[in-house]
This record gives sequence, C-alpha cells and structure tokens, in this order.
Amino acid sequence: MNNSAGPRFDTVDLIRAKRDGANLTDAQIDWLIRSYTAGEIADEQMSALAMAIFFRGMEPRELQRWTAAMIDTGERLDFSGLDRPTADKHSTGGVGDKITLPLAPLVAACGVAVPQLSGRGLGHTGGTLDKLESIPGWQASVSNERMLEILGEVGAVICAAGSGLAPADRKLYALRDVTGTVESIPLIASSIMSKKIAEGTGALVLDVKVGSGAFMKSVEQARELAETMVGLGTDAGVRTTALLTDMEVPLGLTAGNALEVRESVEVLAGGGPADVVELTVALAREMLAGAGRDDVDPAEVLASGRAMDAWRAMIAAQGGDPDAALPVAGHTEVLRAGADGYVQSLDALAVGLAAWRLGAGRARKEDPVQAGAGVEWGVRPGDRVHAGDVIFTLHTDTPDRFEPALADLAEAVTIGPNAPTPRPLIIDRIG
Amino acid sequence: MNNSAGPRFDTVDLIRAKRDGANLTDAQIDWLIRSYTAGEIADEQMSALAMAIFFRGMEPRELQRWTAAMIDTGERLDFSGLDRPTADKHSTGGVGDKITLPLAPLVAACGVAVPQLSGRGLGHTGGTLDKLESIPGWQASVSNERMLEILGEVGAVICAAGSGLAPADRKLYALRDVTGTVESIPLIASSIMSKKIAEGTGALVLDVKVGSGAFMKSVEQARELAETMVGLGTDAGVRTTALLTDMEVPLGLTAGNALEVRESVEVLAGGGPADVVELTVALAREMLAGAGRDDVDPAEVLASGRAMDAWRAMIAAQGGDPDAALPVAGHTEVLRAGADGYVQSLDALAVGLAAWRLGAGRARKEDPVQAGAGVEWGVRPGDRVHAGDVIFTLHTDTPDRFEPALADLAEAVTIGPNAPTPRPLIIDRIG
Repeated sequence: MNNSAGPRFDTVDLIRAKRDGANLTDAQIDWLIRSYTAGEIADEQMSALAMAIFFRGMEPRELQRWTAAMIDTGERLDFSGLDRPTADKHSTGGVGDKITLPLAPLVAACGVAVPQLSGRGLGHTGGTLDKLESIPGWQASVSNERMLEILGEVGAVICAAGSGLAPADRKLYALRDVTGTVESIPLIASSIMSKKIAEGTGALVLDVKVGSGAFMKSVEQARELAETMVGLGTDAGVRTTALLTDMEVPLGLTAGNALEVRESVEVLAGGGPADVVELTVALAREMLAGAGRDDVDPAEVLASGRAMDAWRAMIAAQGGDPDAALPVAGHTEVLRAGADGYVQSLDALAVGLAAWRLGAGRARKEDPVQAGAGVEWGVRPGDRVHAGDVIFTLHTDTPDRFEPALADLAEAVTIGPNAPTPRPLIIDRIG
Repeated sequence: MNNSAGPRFDTVDLIRAKRDGANLTDAQIDWLIRSYTAGEIADEQMSALAMAIFFRGMEPRELQRWTAAMIDTGERLDFSGLDRPTADKHSTGGVGDKITLPLAPLVAACGVAVPQLSGRGLGHTGGTLDKLESIPGWQASVSNERMLEILGEVGAVICAAGSGLAPADRKLYALRDVTGTVESIPLIASSIMSKKIAEGTGALVLDVKVGSGAFMKSVEQARELAETMVGLGTDAGVRTTALLTDMEVPLGLTAGNALEVRESVEVLAGGGPADVVELTVALAREMLAGAGRDDVDPAEVLASGRAMDAWRAMIAAQGGDPDAALPVAGHTEVLRAGADGYVQSLDALAVGLAAWRLGAGRARKEDPVQAGAGVEWGVRPGDRVHAGDVIFTLHTDTPDRFEPALADLAEAVTIGPNAPTPRPLIIDRIG
C-alpha cells in the first residue's frame, strides 16, 4: 500500500499508451491502482483512462493484474478456519431476481458455507439487502468476526460488504458511474471479481443475465462478460462457473422488497414459481460442484424442509424475525388484459421500471426504499388470458406513483392468438 | 452565459451518446461548454467526454458549434475601427520557428494590421513571447485599448492573449494536458480557432507544421488539421488559408530565445537564412491576399527596410529597446562532425529537445526560461562537411545541462557520401 516503493510512472504517459492501443505492464497497473486509491492520481485522469479502456479493452494478462491490484488495496477475508468448504454466487442484476434469498440457505443446508456479501439496489434492479431489510429487525451490517460465527453456526450469511474489501473498486465504480464509463466488460468484470475474490470464497457461480431487464442486452455480450469473469476467478484460485440466464422476462411473479421475500419463502416451503425454483436449484448445483459436494442433490434438500430451517436461522442470526408479518403497501392498483389470447411476452425492463417508480428502488444512493412497494403479475409468457383479467397488481405507499408506473406497464405485456415458443431460462453454462 | 436559460441535459447521457458514436446537438454542445466553464460539469466528466471525442471525432457541424460555444464564453475583440484590414498568423509550433517576429512587422509595413496574440512555450517548441522577452524592456502584457492604439500607430502588435478570450478553451486545454486528450484533431482545431476567431482578425494564415519536430508527424494528419481549421475559420467569416510546412528540419540556424531574435533581425535587415526568408514571405503573401492587399509584394517591402522600421517601432511600443544588446549565455560547448560528407538530415525534435534542456524552454508552465540559452547549427541538409567541423554550438547559463543536450544531439545529424534530395519547405497550401 506504500506507494513510495517501486517504480513511478507519468500518469499522462500511461493514459496515452492505453489510448493508443498499448498494453500496460504489471508495474504500471500496480502503480495506477495504488496511486489512484491513495488520491495521487486525479479523478479526471482516471476517468480519461477508463474511457480509453472502454474503447481499447484490456488483455487477459492486464485485466488479471488490474483485478489483483484492486484486491491488494484492501483486506481479504479468510474462511479457511471453517469446517466446511465455501461457495458464493453473484448475479449481474435482473428484475424480480430474489434467487439469493432461497439459494444461500439451500446451499448451507447442503453442507457448504455461503458467505454472501451483497449490495443495495440502484435503478430498476432491486438489491438483495433492500429485500431482506423488509423483514422486521433484520440488520445488513455484520462484523467480519460475527460473519465467521454465523457461517459456523448457520452456514449462510447475507450481509453488506464492509468498506475494507477492494476500496479501489469502490472509488473507481463511483467515478465510472458519473463519467459514462460503466459499460466496459473488463471494468465490469474486474469490479465484480475483485470483491468476490477478496471475499475469500472457495467456489463461485456467476448468474449473468441477458435481455431487456439486464445490463447485458445480447447473448454475445453476456458470454464475453461471463468468460472474462470465469477466467479471472479461475486464475485467482476460485473455482468459478457461470450460467447465462434469460432476463427478457422477469423472474417469478413479483418485483419489490417484501413481495420478493414472500415469494422466496414460498420456494423454501416447497412451492413458489417454477422458474425461481429451477434457477435456485441450478445455481445450487453449480455451487455444490465448485465446493466438491456434487454428491448432494439440492432439489431433495429443498423438498426436505432443511433449507427453510437454515433460512429461519440465518434471518434470526441477523436480528430478523422469520415469523413476523411482512410490510404491506398502503395502496394497490391493477392493470387488466385488453384482449383474449396467449401472453407472448412480459417485458422485464418495463416491470423493473414500474417497481422502481412505485418506491421499491432508488434513483440515488441516498434514497430510501419502500418495503411494501412493487409489482405482482399473475401471468407469464404462454399463459392464456381473457380481456379484463388482472395482469398486474401495483403496490405503493405513494399513490401518485401509480400513473407513471401504469404508463411503464402499458406495453409490458403482448397478447396474441397462439402460444409462443417457450424461452429457455438457462441459456448456457460457462466454466 | 447564464446557464439557467435554455434546456438542461444529463452530463452522463451526453458522454455516453458521444462514446457510442452519436452526434451532439447544438443545444447539447452549448449546454456542455457553458456548464463546464461555469464549473457545473466536473473535470472528470469533461475528460471522459474529451477521450470519447478522441475516439469518435466530431462532425463538421458539431465542431463548428463547439468552437462557437467556446468563443461565446468570453469577449470578442473588434478591429473594425482601424483604418486598415487585419490579418493574423498561427503556427502549430516547431523548432526554430521565429517566423512571427519578422512576419508581423513585414505585413504591417505592407499596410495590413497584425494583431498577433501569442503564447509562451512548453516542451521542445519555443514560445514567441519568450523570444521577445529576451529583448531588454519588452513587455508581453498589453491592454485591449493599448493594443488598438499600437495597431493604429505601428500596425503590428505581438502580445499575450488576455484571459477574456474563450475562457472555456483555457480551462479545457489545461484539462486535456493532464488527461492524455490533447492529440485530437477536432479538439486541437477548436482550441486554436476559438481564440483566433474571438481575436477578431479579418484574415488568418495557418502554418501547419509536419515532421519530427512538429505535433503532426504525418502529412495526412497535418492536412486533416489544416482543412478542419480552414473550414472553421471560413464558416466564422475569417478569410483563412493554411500552408503545410516541413518540420523534419528546424527552421533557420538557431533555436533559443535571444538567438532567434538575432536571426529575425538579420532577416529584417535583408539577410538571414534562406528558409526563414522564404517562409516569412510566403506567409506574408497569404496574409496580404486574405486582407485584400495582394497588390503589395512583401519581398520588395522586406528589401526596402520598411519592415525593419516597423519592427523597431513595434518593439519600442511595448517598452523594448531595439538597439539594446541581446543577452548571451554564460557558457558554450560545441559538437563536431564525426565524418566527411554531405549532411543528410538534421532532426528537428533532437534540436528542440537540446535547446529545451539547455534552458530555452520550460517543462512546467511556471518554470522560467533562459534568454541566452539554445542551440546554433552551421549546416543544413545538403551542406558539405569535414570531420572535425563544428556542427552545433550549445549555449546555456547552467553548464550541467550540456551533457544531456549533447546526448540529444549525438544522432541529430546524419552524414553520407552523396548530397540528399532537397526537401521542399512548403509542402502544400489549403484554402
């Protein structure tokens, strides 16, 4: 961390080198990341470099070093003292994506510890911590010591990432957010993987979303991001795989905080929407395989009720009451089908935006979210509907939000005379 | 200037639009430039946009608006009250480029007023103001009122650009300098032309340098820059032409401040190096044509001694003593030819770097320069030399600089058995 050691470089020379298509050396990358984190490289220089990286990309060797340098700016967690292997999951973000909630206790119930550091939502994709915070009493902040204790006792913890992991990434991400340099595959991959590698998990599964509700709009982009991240994880000694999964259609039947907790509990109870169950079990299989426990069948464990037991213990360990009633929004509104026929499509982005506007998400980091707000939908593509059937139920504490949310949803569902070809939920597996 | 008027935009949206290849609208460009100048857009956002412009370029329509918006952030000078037309010249910067010194009084002596706002040097190319400041008593700073007076009395003024012209450019240039975004043709062109258009000249000739000692290394780049600037000037109502001129070889026989003043006075006295005379007269012809005075032959006026009279009056008008002895450096050193033969090449960049290291130039804006420091060379490509002949004489007040300067010059001259093909000084004319 002491930047007085080692070679020194000229920042402008390095920006120009990357701009003109050169690859940065290990020493240059180490110096850049250390100096930026220490405040010795100005934001206006780093943003110009990030834009040059947007256009020029990074070679695998550069990206590996860039990621390692970001990890080296902070602490690394160590779960080697646990009596079990560890596995974690990361989703690139989608609408109605509550999978972490049933997945973490399911994998814990299968005998693999899950240290799940999560974030809050920004924009139209919800945040796992926001969802869990709708459970009365539940606290996202956990010390590293307490995290280890919960992992030992319960086997799963979902908590806020402390400020000690990859501080370079926190600073760089905030900069990219305001400088139009978020959408770069190497910068996205290194941001995600620096935190996941620093977190110290032994195995990792990446759920890379593709479609209107996801960051990656095409399968090609999503595959490139997945391959890049799997490469970074593997190089760092983390057994990493990725699933490319569909996000043209939102997951399950709800988008919102308490709404998604309720749906997750249904899955843990052996019910819930088929797609949520399918993806939860598929990701659990990847985590178990990565952790060397592919002898365990997560579908059997889910059916046994042991995942629900782990959920209850996990929520209670962070102060939550698993039996408490979940918050309900003060106002509801419905949107009905305009025609008879088969649901052709259900647009994830429109649903995500509507849930966000209703109060489930935030526009700025410092905004609060409403626990009860969100959208429920009773149909999925392929379902038969009749004109007048309720398609969406909207929930909010601030009824002036209904109008813009209804506008978002007006074109979200298309209805046609024939059943559409079913879309696969899991598009591909990388790793 | 009041940014509360007119439409507002989201800076990140505009960065992303340019990054993804879209063209910015007039309203977007006006807003960007106004907001950046007012401090309402952060440096890290503007540098990311500048890097996106580096990669994506600007359409002629965008660039014209960008330039106009920069002009609109400041004042515009007005020379319409003068009894003569006005013409100015801008050089993109080269080694030994003292042409402004004889050119301005020559054109003034031809009956066209020359309001020459100049800069100081940075790096290996010298600055016109640095050169003139080696004349005892001469002052670069002149008020707008005094500038008009001198133009009326003498016909030529070479002075520092006030802070009132295109303040957006000053701020943006300082940012580009530290963020690796200088080397963008639209950004270079708009930076130069915003100041020249705001300066209010009626005609303008651009001396676009090409070669090792110039910013533009290839004729193609130089031609693109020249065409872009000529287009901007013409669109703004300034009669603009450009000459592409060679900068593989430095101009004349000296690089340094007082050294170049001496050489300029030789030219005004009817002597001086042939290339300096050729380029001075060629640029004067362009300025006179642009000002509607192509009936005057500048070569005749130079021979008549009237340009020297104008020089003396111009120097005296800014407090300088045209008869004072020029400063001489305290130490000299020579570099001799290592073989017999013909000089094949004389590298402008090497000479510029050596002069800079000897103290003629500055590494940072705030550095002082030495009036007497620099390099003289007695030969040019095509000259016959014998082993042991003095090729370079180095001048400095700080003799510890000889060693690095000699190292720069070690390979600066190549000698071969046959005379090389002569290089044309003026490569092309645009406009």
